[in-house]
Amino acid sequence: MCHPITFKPGTKIDLQKIDPRKVDGDWEKETAYEQIAEYTKRSRELAYKLYAENKRSVLLVLQGMDTAGKDGTIRTVLTGINPQSCQIVPFKQPSSLELDHDFLWRVHMAVPRRGNIGIFNRSHYEDVLVVRVHNLVPKNEWSTRYHRINEFEDLLTDGGVKIVKCFLHISKEEQRERLQARLDKPHKRWKFSKGDLAERKLWDDYQEAYRVALEECNTKHAPWHIIPSDRKWYRNLVVSRLLLDTLEEIDPKFPEEEEGLEDIIVE
Amino acid sequence: MCHPITFKPGTKIDLQKIDPRKVDGDWEKETAYEQIAEYTKRSRELAYKLYAENKRSVLLVLQGMDTAGKDGTIRTVLTGINPQSCQIVPFKQPSSLELDHDFLWRVHMAVPRRGNIGIFNRSHYEDVLVVRVHNLVPKNEWSTRYHRINEFEDLLTDGGVKIVKCFLHISKEEQRERLQARLDKPHKRWKFSKGDLAERKLWDDYQEAYRVALEECNTKHAPWHIIPSDRKWYRNLVVSRLLLDTLEEIDPKFPEEEEGLEDIIVE
Repeated sequence: MCHPITFKPGTKIDLQKIDPRKVDGDWEKETAYEQIAEYTKRSRELAYKLYAENKRSVLLVLQGMDTAGKDGTIRTVLTGINPQSCQIVPFKQPSSLELDHDFLWRVHMAVPRRGNIGIFNRSHYEDVLVVRVHNLVPKNEWSTRYHRINEFEDLLTDGGVKIVKCFLHISKEEQRERLQARLDKPHKRWKFSKGDLAERKLWDDYQEAYRVALEECNTKHAPWHIIPSDRKWYRNLVVSRLLLDTLEEIDPKFPEEEEGLEDIIVE
Repeated sequence: MCHPITFKPGTKIDLQKIDPRKVDGDWEKETAYEQIAEYTKRSRELAYKLYAENKRSVLLVLQGMDTAGKDGTIRTVLTGINPQSCQIVPFKQPSSLELDHDFLWRVHMAVPRRGNIGIFNRSHYEDVLVVRVHNLVPKNEWSTRYHRINEFEDLLTDGGVKIVKCFLHISKEEQRERLQARLDKPHKRWKFSKGDLAERKLWDDYQEAYRVALEECNTKHAPWHIIPSDRKWYRNLVVSRLLLDTLEEIDPKFPEEEEGLEDIIVE
Protein backbone atom coordinates (compact mmCIF):
# COMPACT_ATOMS: atom_id res chain seq x y z
CA MET A 1 0.00 0.00 0.00
CA CYS A 2 1.34 3.42 -0.86
CA HIS A 3 -1.59 5.53 -1.89
CA PRO A 4 -2.03 9.28 -1.76
CA ILE A 5 -4.71 10.79 0.45
CA THR A 6 -7.83 11.76 -1.45
CA PHE A 7 -11.15 13.35 -0.54
CA LYS A 8 -14.55 13.24 -2.12
CA PRO A 9 -15.38 16.39 -4.07
CA GLY A 10 -17.03 18.94 -1.78
CA THR A 11 -15.34 17.66 1.40
CA LYS A 12 -13.64 20.09 3.78
CA ILE A 13 -9.90 19.55 4.07
CA ASP A 14 -7.85 20.26 7.19
CA LEU A 15 -4.17 20.14 6.27
CA GLN A 16 -3.17 20.38 9.95
CA LYS A 17 -4.74 16.97 10.48
CA ILE A 18 -2.89 15.27 7.66
CA ASP A 19 0.45 13.90 8.82
CA PRO A 20 3.25 14.74 6.37
CA ARG A 21 5.27 11.83 7.80
CA LYS A 22 2.51 9.30 7.26
CA VAL A 23 3.64 5.97 5.77
CA ASP A 24 1.21 3.28 4.64
CA GLY A 25 2.46 -0.20 5.48
CA ASP A 26 5.98 -1.11 6.56
CA TRP A 27 8.02 0.49 3.83
CA GLU A 28 11.57 1.56 4.39
CA LYS A 29 13.81 3.63 2.19
CA GLU A 30 15.56 0.68 0.61
CA THR A 31 12.45 -1.36 -0.17
CA ALA A 32 10.76 1.77 -1.45
CA TYR A 33 13.47 2.40 -4.04
CA GLU A 34 13.40 -1.22 -5.18
CA GLN A 35 9.67 -0.87 -5.65
CA ILE A 36 10.06 2.44 -7.51
CA ALA A 37 12.46 0.75 -9.96
CA GLU A 38 9.82 -1.89 -10.61
CA TYR A 39 7.06 0.70 -11.07
CA THR A 40 9.26 2.71 -13.42
CA LYS A 41 9.86 -0.33 -15.58
CA ARG A 42 6.14 -0.95 -15.94
CA SER A 43 5.38 2.73 -16.50
CA ARG A 44 8.06 2.86 -19.19
CA GLU A 45 6.29 0.13 -21.16
CA LEU A 46 2.88 1.74 -20.77
CA ALA A 47 4.29 5.15 -21.72
CA TYR A 48 5.58 3.61 -24.94
CA LYS A 49 2.11 2.27 -25.73
CA LEU A 50 0.54 5.63 -24.88
CA TYR A 51 2.96 7.27 -27.31
CA ALA A 52 2.28 4.71 -30.04
CA GLU A 53 -1.49 4.96 -29.55
CA ASN A 54 -1.27 8.74 -29.93
CA LYS A 55 -4.80 9.44 -28.73
CA ARG A 56 -4.68 10.38 -25.07
CA SER A 57 -2.27 12.00 -22.65
CA VAL A 58 -1.48 12.29 -18.94
CA LEU A 59 -0.95 15.56 -17.12
CA LEU A 60 0.70 15.34 -13.72
CA VAL A 61 0.42 18.64 -11.84
CA LEU A 62 2.94 19.09 -9.02
CA GLN A 63 2.36 21.72 -6.36
CA GLY A 64 3.88 22.23 -2.94
CA MET A 65 5.59 24.71 -0.67
CA ASP A 66 9.23 25.64 -1.36
CA THR A 67 11.51 22.63 -0.74
CA ALA A 68 8.54 20.22 -0.87
CA GLY A 69 10.43 18.34 -3.58
CA LYS A 70 8.84 19.02 -6.95
CA ASP A 71 12.16 18.75 -8.79
CA GLY A 72 13.26 15.72 -6.81
CA THR A 73 9.99 13.95 -7.51
CA ILE A 74 10.31 14.56 -11.23
CA ARG A 75 13.93 13.38 -11.20
CA THR A 76 13.12 10.17 -9.37
CA VAL A 77 9.79 9.26 -10.89
CA LEU A 78 10.44 10.22 -14.51
CA THR A 79 14.09 9.27 -14.96
CA GLY A 80 13.89 5.93 -16.71
CA ILE A 81 10.91 6.88 -18.86
CA ASN A 82 11.80 7.73 -22.47
CA PRO A 83 12.05 11.53 -22.52
CA GLN A 84 10.57 11.50 -26.02
CA SER A 85 7.16 10.91 -24.45
CA CYS A 86 7.60 13.39 -21.58
CA GLN A 87 6.92 17.11 -21.67
CA ILE A 88 7.98 18.84 -18.50
CA VAL A 89 7.06 22.47 -18.09
CA PRO A 90 8.27 24.60 -15.20
CA PHE A 91 6.01 27.57 -14.50
CA LYS A 92 8.04 30.46 -13.23
CA GLN A 93 7.12 34.08 -12.63
CA PRO A 94 5.11 35.00 -15.73
CA SER A 95 6.84 37.01 -18.45
CA SER A 96 5.42 40.32 -19.59
CA LEU A 97 4.10 38.60 -22.72
CA GLU A 98 2.31 36.04 -20.55
CA LEU A 99 0.92 38.78 -18.31
CA ASP A 100 -0.53 40.40 -21.42
CA HIS A 101 -2.96 37.47 -21.59
CA ASP A 102 -5.40 35.78 -19.24
CA PHE A 103 -3.85 33.51 -16.60
CA LEU A 104 -4.70 30.29 -18.45
CA TRP A 105 -3.14 31.33 -21.77
CA ARG A 106 0.38 30.10 -21.05
CA VAL A 107 -0.96 27.02 -19.35
CA HIS A 108 -3.13 26.03 -22.28
CA MET A 109 -0.17 26.23 -24.63
CA ALA A 110 1.79 23.89 -22.36
CA VAL A 111 -0.79 21.09 -22.26
CA PRO A 112 0.85 17.78 -23.27
CA ARG A 113 0.16 16.67 -26.80
CA ARG A 114 -1.49 13.33 -27.52
CA GLY A 115 0.59 10.33 -26.56
CA ASN A 116 2.65 12.22 -24.01
CA ILE A 117 3.06 12.44 -20.27
CA GLY A 118 3.14 16.09 -19.30
CA ILE A 119 4.39 17.35 -15.98
CA PHE A 120 3.62 20.81 -14.67
CA ASN A 121 6.29 21.87 -12.18
CA ARG A 122 4.03 24.44 -10.52
CA SER A 123 1.01 25.32 -12.62
CA HIS A 124 -2.08 27.48 -13.02
CA TYR A 125 -2.60 26.92 -9.29
CA GLU A 126 0.06 29.53 -8.62
CA ASP A 127 -2.59 31.99 -9.79
CA VAL A 128 -4.65 31.21 -6.70
CA LEU A 129 -1.65 30.69 -4.40
CA VAL A 130 1.20 33.20 -4.69
CA VAL A 131 -1.16 35.60 -6.44
CA ARG A 132 -3.69 35.37 -3.59
CA VAL A 133 -1.14 35.53 -0.79
CA HIS A 134 0.58 38.58 -2.27
CA ASN A 135 -2.57 40.22 -3.65
CA LEU A 136 -1.01 40.41 -7.10
CA VAL A 137 -4.47 40.88 -8.59
CA PRO A 138 -7.63 42.11 -6.83
CA LYS A 139 -9.73 39.60 -4.88
CA ASN A 140 -12.67 39.89 -7.26
CA GLU A 141 -10.32 38.65 -9.97
CA TRP A 142 -8.58 35.72 -8.23
CA SER A 143 -11.79 34.60 -6.58
CA THR A 144 -13.31 33.72 -9.99
CA ARG A 145 -10.33 31.56 -10.87
CA TYR A 146 -11.33 28.41 -8.99
CA HIS A 147 -14.37 28.10 -11.20
CA ARG A 148 -12.37 28.92 -14.32
CA ILE A 149 -9.76 26.32 -13.42
CA ASN A 150 -12.42 23.66 -12.96
CA GLU A 151 -13.94 24.48 -16.34
CA PHE A 152 -10.51 24.50 -17.99
CA GLU A 153 -9.61 21.12 -16.49
CA ASP A 154 -12.96 19.76 -17.64
CA LEU A 155 -12.21 20.90 -21.18
CA LEU A 156 -8.83 19.15 -21.12
CA THR A 157 -10.30 15.99 -19.63
CA ASP A 158 -12.94 15.91 -22.33
CA GLY A 159 -10.16 16.21 -24.90
CA GLY A 160 -8.41 13.09 -23.67
CA VAL A 161 -6.05 14.50 -21.04
CA LYS A 162 -6.03 12.53 -17.79
CA ILE A 163 -5.23 15.10 -15.09
CA VAL A 164 -3.52 13.96 -11.89
CA LYS A 165 -2.94 16.72 -9.37
CA CYS A 166 -0.49 16.20 -6.52
CA PHE A 167 0.04 18.39 -3.49
CA LEU A 168 3.39 17.55 -1.91
CA HIS A 169 2.57 18.06 1.75
CA ILE A 170 5.45 18.93 4.09
CA SER A 171 5.55 20.27 7.64
CA LYS A 172 6.88 23.70 8.56
CA GLU A 173 9.65 22.05 10.60
CA GLU A 174 10.70 19.91 7.64
CA GLN A 175 10.95 23.02 5.46
CA ARG A 176 13.12 24.64 8.10
CA GLU A 177 15.49 21.69 8.10
CA ARG A 178 15.69 21.59 4.30
CA LEU A 179 16.38 25.31 3.98
CA GLN A 180 19.02 25.10 6.69
CA ALA A 181 20.61 22.13 4.94
CA ARG A 182 20.91 24.19 1.76
CA LEU A 183 22.75 26.84 3.72
CA ASP A 184 24.97 24.46 5.63
CA LYS A 185 26.16 22.43 2.67
CA PRO A 186 28.31 24.58 0.37
CA HIS A 187 27.43 22.48 -2.71
CA LYS A 188 23.72 23.13 -2.07
CA ARG A 189 23.97 26.86 -1.42
CA TRP A 190 23.30 27.80 -5.05
CA LYS A 191 19.73 26.55 -4.47
CA PHE A 192 19.12 29.04 -1.68
CA SER A 193 17.73 32.51 -2.14
CA LYS A 194 17.12 35.02 0.65
CA GLY A 195 13.66 35.44 -0.83
CA ASP A 196 12.90 31.93 0.43
CA LEU A 197 12.93 33.25 4.02
CA ALA A 198 10.43 36.00 3.24
CA GLU A 199 8.09 33.42 1.68
CA ARG A 200 8.51 31.14 4.69
CA LYS A 201 7.18 33.90 6.93
CA LEU A 202 3.92 33.63 4.99
CA TRP A 203 3.61 29.89 5.74
CA ASP A 204 0.13 30.15 7.29
CA ASP A 205 -1.21 32.28 4.45
CA TYR A 206 0.04 29.75 1.93
CA GLN A 207 -1.43 26.82 3.85
CA GLU A 208 -4.78 28.60 3.87
CA ALA A 209 -4.52 29.35 0.13
CA TYR A 210 -3.70 25.70 -0.50
CA ARG A 211 -6.64 24.57 1.60
CA VAL A 212 -9.04 26.62 -0.48
CA ALA A 213 -7.50 25.50 -3.79
CA LEU A 214 -7.62 21.87 -2.68
CA GLU A 215 -11.25 22.17 -1.63
CA GLU A 216 -12.55 24.26 -4.51
CA CYS A 217 -10.79 22.38 -7.29
CA ASN A 218 -11.15 18.83 -6.02
CA THR A 219 -13.42 17.72 -8.85
CA LYS A 220 -14.49 14.31 -10.01
CA HIS A 221 -12.68 14.73 -13.32
CA ALA A 222 -9.50 16.13 -11.78
CA PRO A 223 -9.19 15.25 -8.09
CA TRP A 224 -6.36 16.34 -5.82
CA HIS A 225 -3.96 13.81 -4.34
CA ILE A 226 -2.21 14.76 -1.12
CA ILE A 227 1.24 13.20 -0.90
CA PRO A 228 2.85 12.93 2.55
CA SER A 229 6.25 14.38 1.67
CA ASP A 230 8.37 14.82 4.78
CA ARG A 231 10.05 11.56 3.81
CA LYS A 232 11.42 11.98 0.32
CA TRP A 233 11.55 8.27 -0.44
CA TYR A 234 7.91 7.81 0.52
CA ARG A 235 6.83 10.82 -1.52
CA ASN A 236 8.64 9.36 -4.53
CA LEU A 237 7.10 5.94 -3.95
CA VAL A 238 3.56 7.31 -3.80
CA VAL A 239 3.89 9.45 -6.92
CA SER A 240 5.62 6.64 -8.80
CA ARG A 241 2.76 4.30 -7.99
CA LEU A 242 0.17 6.95 -8.83
CA LEU A 243 1.69 7.43 -12.29
CA LEU A 244 1.64 3.68 -12.86
CA ASP A 245 -1.96 3.38 -11.66
CA THR A 246 -2.95 6.20 -14.00
CA LEU A 247 -1.31 4.58 -17.01
CA GLU A 248 -2.85 1.22 -16.15
CA GLU A 249 -6.27 2.82 -15.88
CA ILE A 250 -5.86 4.47 -19.29
CA ASP A 251 -4.73 1.09 -20.66
CA PRO A 252 -3.28 2.37 -23.95
CA LYS A 253 -3.23 0.09 -27.00
CA PHE A 254 -0.94 -0.12 -29.99
CA PRO A 255 -2.73 1.38 -32.99
CA GLU A 256 -4.44 -0.71 -35.64
CA GLU A 257 -2.34 -1.62 -38.64
CA GLU A 258 -3.25 -0.43 -42.14
CA GLU A 259 -5.34 -2.86 -44.17
CA GLY A 260 -3.81 -5.09 -46.78
CA LEU A 261 -0.29 -5.42 -45.41
CA GLU A 262 -0.24 -9.23 -45.30
CA ASP A 263 1.38 -10.04 -48.63
CA ILE A 264 3.67 -7.09 -49.19
CA ILE A 265 7.28 -7.89 -50.08
CA VAL A 266 9.64 -4.94 -49.80
CA GLU A 267 11.93 -4.60 -52.82
CA MET B 1 36.94 4.40 -29.81
CA CYS B 2 33.44 5.00 -31.08
CA HIS B 3 33.44 8.29 -32.88
CA PRO B 4 31.18 9.57 -35.64
CA ILE B 5 32.61 10.37 -39.05
CA THR B 6 33.20 14.06 -39.57
CA PHE B 7 34.53 16.19 -42.41
CA LYS B 8 36.18 19.57 -42.54
CA PRO B 9 33.81 22.32 -43.68
CA GLY B 10 33.90 22.63 -47.47
CA THR B 11 34.87 19.00 -48.07
CA LYS B 12 32.99 16.92 -50.63
CA ILE B 13 31.13 13.98 -49.11
CA ASP B 14 30.46 10.68 -50.89
CA LEU B 15 27.91 8.73 -48.88
CA GLN B 16 28.45 5.67 -51.08
CA LYS B 17 31.96 5.44 -49.73
CA ILE B 18 30.97 5.55 -46.07
CA ASP B 19 30.25 2.09 -44.72
CA PRO B 20 27.02 2.04 -42.65
CA ARG B 21 28.28 -1.13 -40.95
CA LYS B 22 31.56 0.43 -39.89
CA VAL B 23 32.61 -0.30 -36.28
CA ASP B 24 35.59 1.38 -34.64
CA GLY B 25 37.51 -1.02 -32.42
CA ASP B 26 36.32 -4.41 -31.25
CA TRP B 27 32.94 -3.55 -29.78
CA GLU B 28 30.19 -6.08 -29.61
CA LYS B 29 26.57 -5.58 -28.76
CA GLU B 30 26.94 -6.55 -25.12
CA THR B 31 30.01 -4.47 -24.35
CA ALA B 32 28.44 -1.56 -26.22
CA TYR B 33 25.37 -1.54 -23.97
CA GLU B 34 27.52 -1.76 -20.83
CA GLN B 35 29.43 1.25 -22.11
CA ILE B 36 26.24 3.13 -22.96
CA ALA B 37 25.02 2.64 -19.38
CA GLU B 38 28.26 4.16 -18.14
CA TYR B 39 28.04 7.09 -20.56
CA THR B 40 24.43 7.72 -19.57
CA LYS B 41 25.38 7.86 -15.91
CA ARG B 42 28.00 10.51 -16.61
CA SER B 43 25.75 12.44 -18.97
CA ARG B 44 23.01 12.42 -16.33
CA GLU B 45 25.29 14.19 -13.85
CA LEU B 46 26.46 16.74 -16.41
CA ALA B 47 22.87 17.36 -17.57
CA TYR B 48 21.98 18.17 -13.98
CA LYS B 49 24.80 20.72 -13.82
CA LEU B 50 23.76 22.18 -17.17
CA TYR B 51 20.24 22.59 -15.80
CA ALA B 52 21.46 24.17 -12.57
CA GLU B 53 23.82 26.51 -14.41
CA ASN B 54 20.93 27.67 -16.60
CA LYS B 55 23.10 29.51 -19.12
CA ARG B 56 23.67 27.26 -22.10
CA SER B 57 21.91 24.43 -23.89
CA VAL B 58 22.56 21.50 -26.21
CA LEU B 59 20.61 20.83 -29.40
CA LEU B 60 20.96 17.37 -30.88
CA VAL B 61 19.54 17.23 -34.40
CA LEU B 62 18.67 13.72 -35.64
CA GLN B 63 18.17 13.09 -39.35
CA GLY B 64 18.10 9.90 -41.36
CA MET B 65 16.13 7.89 -43.90
CA ASP B 66 12.96 6.11 -42.76
CA THR B 67 13.82 3.28 -40.32
CA ALA B 68 17.30 4.76 -39.70
CA GLY B 69 16.45 4.72 -36.01
CA LYS B 70 15.77 8.25 -34.83
CA ASP B 71 13.20 7.11 -32.27
CA GLY B 72 15.32 4.18 -31.13
CA THR B 73 18.34 6.42 -30.67
CA ILE B 74 16.37 8.84 -28.52
CA ARG B 75 14.94 6.00 -26.46
CA THR B 76 18.32 4.44 -25.80
CA VAL B 77 20.49 7.49 -25.39
CA LEU B 78 18.11 9.72 -23.45
CA THR B 79 16.32 7.23 -21.19
CA GLY B 80 18.12 7.60 -17.90
CA ILE B 81 18.57 11.36 -18.20
CA ASN B 82 16.13 13.39 -16.09
CA PRO B 83 13.32 14.31 -18.51
CA GLN B 84 13.01 17.66 -16.73
CA SER B 85 16.11 18.80 -18.59
CA CYS B 86 15.16 17.28 -21.96
CA GLN B 87 12.98 18.86 -24.63
CA ILE B 88 12.27 16.50 -27.48
CA VAL B 89 10.49 17.87 -30.49
CA PRO B 90 9.30 15.70 -33.37
CA PHE B 91 8.91 17.64 -36.63
CA LYS B 92 6.10 16.20 -38.66
CA GLN B 93 4.39 17.44 -41.79
CA PRO B 94 3.90 21.16 -41.10
CA SER B 95 0.44 22.35 -40.04
CA SER B 96 -1.37 25.01 -42.03
CA LEU B 97 -0.47 27.53 -39.32
CA GLU B 98 3.20 26.60 -39.67
CA LEU B 99 2.99 26.83 -43.45
CA ASP B 100 1.66 30.38 -43.03
CA HIS B 101 5.15 31.35 -41.84
CA ASP B 102 8.70 30.99 -43.12
CA PHE B 103 10.24 27.53 -42.78
CA LEU B 104 12.34 28.43 -39.72
CA TRP B 105 9.44 29.85 -37.68
CA ARG B 106 8.33 26.61 -36.07
CA VAL B 107 11.92 25.53 -35.61
CA HIS B 108 12.91 28.71 -33.80
CA MET B 109 10.06 28.28 -31.33
CA ALA B 110 11.27 24.76 -30.55
CA VAL B 111 14.87 25.69 -29.67
CA PRO B 112 15.74 24.31 -26.22
CA ARG B 113 15.69 26.82 -23.41
CA ARG B 114 18.77 27.50 -21.30
CA GLY B 115 19.88 24.58 -19.19
CA ASN B 116 18.19 21.99 -21.38
CA ILE B 117 19.14 19.28 -23.82
CA GLY B 118 16.91 19.61 -26.86
CA ILE B 119 16.45 16.88 -29.42
CA PHE B 120 15.01 17.50 -32.85
CA ASN B 121 13.52 14.29 -34.24
CA ARG B 122 13.75 15.48 -37.83
CA SER B 123 14.28 19.21 -38.15
CA HIS B 124 14.59 22.21 -40.46
CA TYR B 125 16.64 19.92 -42.70
CA GLU B 126 13.41 18.36 -43.92
CA ASP B 127 12.94 21.66 -45.75
CA VAL B 128 15.89 20.81 -47.98
CA LEU B 129 15.19 17.05 -48.06
CA VAL B 130 11.57 15.98 -48.52
CA VAL B 131 10.77 19.45 -49.84
CA ARG B 132 13.53 19.24 -52.44
CA VAL B 133 12.84 15.64 -53.45
CA HIS B 134 9.11 16.29 -53.92
CA ASN B 135 9.46 19.84 -55.24
CA LEU B 136 7.11 21.13 -52.56
CA VAL B 137 8.42 24.65 -53.15
CA PRO B 138 10.19 26.01 -56.27
CA LYS B 139 13.94 25.44 -56.60
CA ASN B 140 14.73 29.14 -56.30
CA GLU B 141 13.14 28.98 -52.86
CA TRP B 142 14.68 25.81 -51.42
CA SER B 143 18.08 26.61 -52.89
CA THR B 144 18.42 29.68 -50.64
CA ARG B 145 17.71 27.63 -47.54
CA TYR B 146 21.19 26.16 -47.03
CA HIS B 147 22.53 29.64 -46.47
CA ARG B 148 19.59 30.59 -44.26
CA ILE B 149 20.06 27.45 -42.17
CA ASN B 150 23.74 28.24 -41.65
CA GLU B 151 22.91 31.77 -40.54
CA PHE B 152 20.15 30.52 -38.25
CA GLU B 153 22.44 27.96 -36.64
CA ASP B 154 25.09 30.64 -36.20
CA LEU B 155 22.54 32.81 -34.37
CA LEU B 156 21.66 29.95 -32.02
CA THR B 157 25.31 29.09 -31.41
CA ASP B 158 26.03 32.68 -30.54
CA GLY B 159 23.16 32.57 -28.06
CA GLY B 160 24.66 29.65 -26.14
CA VAL B 161 23.14 26.67 -27.96
CA LYS B 162 25.66 23.94 -28.77
CA ILE B 163 24.36 22.31 -31.96
CA VAL B 164 25.23 18.68 -32.66
CA LYS B 165 23.86 17.37 -35.95
CA CYS B 166 23.71 13.63 -36.59
CA PHE B 167 22.96 11.85 -39.83
CA LEU B 168 22.01 8.25 -39.10
CA HIS B 169 23.49 6.52 -42.13
CA ILE B 170 21.91 3.21 -43.19
CA SER B 171 22.22 1.14 -46.36
CA LYS B 172 19.34 0.56 -48.76
CA GLU B 173 19.48 -3.15 -48.00
CA GLU B 174 19.23 -2.50 -44.26
CA GLN B 175 16.15 -0.36 -44.83
CA ARG B 176 14.61 -3.18 -46.86
CA GLU B 177 15.16 -5.62 -44.03
CA ARG B 178 13.75 -3.27 -41.41
CA LEU B 179 10.63 -2.49 -43.43
CA GLN B 180 10.08 -6.19 -44.13
CA ALA B 181 10.51 -6.94 -40.42
CA ARG B 182 7.77 -4.46 -39.61
CA LEU B 183 5.49 -6.29 -42.01
CA ASP B 184 6.42 -9.78 -40.87
CA LYS B 185 6.02 -9.19 -37.14
CA PRO B 186 2.35 -8.54 -36.30
CA HIS B 187 3.26 -6.47 -33.21
CA LYS B 188 5.35 -4.14 -35.39
CA ARG B 189 2.86 -3.69 -38.22
CA TRP B 190 1.32 -0.55 -36.74
CA LYS B 191 4.62 1.17 -37.55
CA PHE B 192 4.29 0.43 -41.25
CA SER B 193 2.59 2.68 -43.77
CA LYS B 194 2.25 1.94 -47.47
CA GLY B 195 3.59 5.43 -48.05
CA ASP B 196 6.96 4.12 -46.80
CA LEU B 197 7.31 2.09 -50.00
CA ALA B 198 6.69 5.12 -52.22
CA GLU B 199 9.37 7.04 -50.33
CA ARG B 200 11.78 4.11 -50.63
CA LYS B 201 11.50 4.30 -54.42
CA LEU B 202 13.04 7.77 -54.14
CA TRP B 203 16.09 6.43 -52.24
CA ASP B 204 18.66 7.87 -54.67
CA ASP B 205 17.02 11.29 -54.74
CA TYR B 206 17.06 11.41 -50.94
CA GLN B 207 20.69 10.32 -50.78
CA GLU B 208 21.58 13.12 -53.17
CA ALA B 209 19.56 15.65 -51.16
CA TYR B 210 21.34 14.47 -48.00
CA ARG B 211 24.74 14.77 -49.69
CA VAL B 212 24.06 18.41 -50.57
CA ALA B 213 22.68 19.24 -47.09
CA LEU B 214 25.67 17.56 -45.43
CA GLU B 215 28.11 19.46 -47.63
CA GLU B 216 26.44 22.86 -47.62
CA CYS B 217 25.62 22.97 -43.91
CA ASN B 218 28.76 21.38 -42.51
CA THR B 219 29.94 24.52 -40.74
CA LYS B 220 32.55 25.09 -38.10
CA HIS B 221 29.95 26.16 -35.54
CA ALA B 222 27.51 23.33 -36.34
CA PRO B 223 29.26 20.42 -38.05
CA TRP B 224 27.56 17.25 -39.25
CA HIS B 225 28.35 13.89 -37.67
CA ILE B 226 27.75 10.81 -39.77
CA ILE B 227 26.72 7.85 -37.62
CA PRO B 228 27.15 4.37 -39.12
CA SER B 229 23.70 3.00 -38.29
CA ASP B 230 23.18 -0.42 -39.85
CA ARG B 231 24.03 -1.85 -36.44
CA LYS B 232 21.61 -0.34 -33.96
CA TRP B 233 23.82 -0.97 -30.94
CA TYR B 234 26.78 0.77 -32.56
CA ARG B 235 24.64 3.73 -33.62
CA ASN B 236 23.43 4.07 -30.02
CA LEU B 237 26.96 3.79 -28.68
CA VAL B 238 28.30 6.51 -30.96
CA VAL B 239 25.49 8.97 -30.24
CA SER B 240 25.65 8.25 -26.51
CA ARG B 241 29.37 9.02 -26.52
CA LEU B 242 28.85 12.11 -28.68
CA LEU B 243 26.33 13.50 -26.19
CA LEU B 244 28.74 12.87 -23.32
CA ASP B 245 31.64 14.47 -25.21
CA THR B 246 29.46 17.51 -25.92
CA LEU B 247 28.47 17.93 -22.28
CA GLU B 248 32.08 17.48 -21.14
CA GLU B 249 33.21 20.11 -23.63
CA ILE B 250 30.59 22.56 -22.35
CA ASP B 251 31.72 21.74 -18.81
CA PRO B 252 28.74 23.29 -16.98
CA LYS B 253 29.21 24.64 -13.45
CA PHE B 254 26.84 25.01 -10.53
CA PRO B 255 25.85 28.67 -10.23
CA GLU B 256 27.41 31.03 -7.72
CA GLU B 257 25.65 31.34 -4.39
CA GLU B 258 24.14 34.63 -3.22
CA GLU B 259 26.40 36.73 -1.04
CA GLY B 260 26.01 36.79 2.72
CA LEU B 261 24.55 33.34 3.28
CA GLU B 262 27.17 32.18 5.79
CA ASP B 263 25.53 33.05 9.08
CA ILE B 264 21.85 32.66 8.30
CA ILE B 265 19.82 30.54 10.71
CA VAL B 266 16.39 29.56 9.42
CA GLU B 267 13.65 30.08 11.99
